Amino acid sequence: MRSIVFQSIFVLVMPININDIYDGDIKAVARAISVVENGGTGANELIEKIYPNTGNAHRIGITGPSGAGKSTLVDKLTHLYRKSGKMVGIVAIDPTSPFTGGALLGDRLRLQELSLNKEVFFRSMANRGSRGGISRKTGEVVDILDSSGKDVVMIETVGVGQSELDIAGAADTTIVVLVPESGDEIQVMKAGLMEIADIFVLNKSDREGADLMLAHLSESLKLRSDVNWLPKIVKTSAIRNEGIEELMEAIEEHSKWLSSEDKIGSKRNLRLINRVKEIIVEELNSEFWTDERMSLLENMISDNGNNLITPYKIVEDLKKV
Amino acid sequence: MRSIVFQSIFVLVMPININDIYDGDIKAVARAISVVENGGTGANELIEKIYPNTGNAHRIGITGPSGAGKSTLVDKLTHLYRKSGKMVGIVAIDPTSPFTGGALLGDRLRLQELSLNKEVFFRSMANRGSRGGISRKTGEVVDILDSSGKDVVMIETVGVGQSELDIAGAADTTIVVLVPESGDEIQVMKAGLMEIADIFVLNKSDREGADLMLAHLSESLKLRSDVNWLPKIVKTSAIRNEGIEELMEAIEEHSKWLSSEDKIGSKRNLRLINRVKEIIVEELNSEFWTDERMSLLENMISDNGNNLITPYKIVEDLKKV
Repeated sequence: MRSIVFQSIFVLVMPININDIYDGDIKAVARAISVVENGGTGANELIEKIYPNTGNAHRIGITGPSGAGKSTLVDKLTHLYRKSGKMVGIVAIDPTSPFTGGALLGDRLRLQELSLNKEVFFRSMANRGSRGGISRKTGEVVDILDSSGKDVVMIETVGVGQSELDIAGAADTTIVVLVPESGDEIQVMKAGLMEIADIFVLNKSDREGADLMLAHLSESLKLRSDVNWLPKIVKTSAIRNEGIEELMEAIEEHSKWLSSEDKIGSKRNLRLINRVKEIIVEELNSEFWTDERMSLLENMISDNGNNLITPYKIVEDLKKV
Repeated sequence: MRSIVFQSIFVLVMPININDIYDGDIKAVARAISVVENGGTGANELIEKIYPNTGNAHRIGITGPSGAGKSTLVDKLTHLYRKSGKMVGIVAIDPTSPFTGGALLGDRLRLQELSLNKEVFFRSMANRGSRGGISRKTGEVVDILDSSGKDVVMIETVGVGQSELDIAGAADTTIVVLVPESGDEIQVMKAGLMEIADIFVLNKSDREGADLMLAHLSESLKLRSDVNWLPKIVKTSAIRNEGIEELMEAIEEHSKWLSSEDKIGSKRNLRLINRVKEIIVEELNSEFWTDERMSLLENMISDNGNNLITPYKIVEDLKKV
């Protein structure tokens, strides 16, 4: 699908050669990701070009409470995938800002070292700011990694509430990582987890309470209504490198199931539909919010001392413009 | 502002008398909240009617990691507010589903008992499903409680990532609840917490590590750029009913600061602007997605075996219709 014609997107003064992205050139991929993160027309053009070259990577979402050992798990999985010759992309969605520092940043730095070759590309993205935007951008970053020849792309994020659903939407296979101690959090997350997990990992499974947790988890799975795929449970100790091969096998098994049932096609179609809907919302919004309407809104709001103008009245007036 | 004219909204076959809502009649309030939760035209009409009667309640957002004791804190605060004769509304945004069960539901049931009178109204809302929708609905439920004569409305939610920002947007005063053990989570949440917290509560402050956590917290506050209001730190032990009066005083102090600086007005205007924007998005979306466009999208997607149709190409074709 590679074009022989030289295709390039001009970003500032530096053109990105599309074929360099397809070749997995780390500088080209890094720049392409920056373009997507910055958004705007450049990002759209880039995604349009690389899109036909996507669809080859298996997308693995990894979520769970903080401290469950997701980063270490991703690290060990990466090493194992490398052993079998696979190219790996990693996107870590980070609910932190640069000044957070600490253990989390330490993990990241370890992974950044991994990223300095063509076979493993690591990128961390901040999970703050515009609602919804992150989900689409994450998808586009994964598209770039996919088009760059990666066989596996892992998307890692702390999971509570919406972020779980986001990652399940972005991934072909969703892994939920738990630890024996995370009883409280499971209580809170359980409903969501049951819906999205294709594989449960019980990490730090050498710790006290692991068997009890395992029993609870197996019991809960019986509540799951979607009986086509019964989520696997894999015990690991990522830090000791135990259970990682079993996890890789479970991923492989789920991937085969997806293909055999042609679930992978409908997952991809759903992603495409969601992306189209997000683009539509953005475009409708930017068309609607002309300068005239923005200042009309400001004027109406500043006159609104006694709550006498209601939201729908304002909407009505804005639409008359 | 109460109208003598009988105003009613027909919901199914049961009309809601707007004046019953203003009087704090629990059945009318509960039904009005259900109307808002169900959405649609009925919800819009209802909000239009009650909106001019809002703006009297102080809106308190309470967030923090799961297990920090938020529910107990809300419980104790409620009792204290009742002692001083204040009417209290509580909205708990629950990242759970009915079958989750366990400790959390136990807490809720305790609070539900509280809700069986006119002075304290409790409502739990599920935090799943449509992105963004929850934030607007939460705001509308709070509006109803506000219009029903509540002096204080507390909005409680587990805070990670987006939900923190949502609660800060919905509240006049935002309280972040932490416990000595929540070091890891703070690490993750810190950047966000610094932006949104008006008051930090260190709950379970009789436990080991409380002083260290307190020192860390104070140190972090120095990084905060918004120096107009330096967030208070209050030590509590909710379960022992310790520190609750100090917390109430801190809330009072923040409330006074908001009024004196006329910050309260700009907070409310921002909420109104956000609500208008959300309504606009919903209306633009529902106008755009005609049956014709929906089936065109489906056709284009089902023909898309080899990823040859890109998202923006689809958008372009949809806009031509």
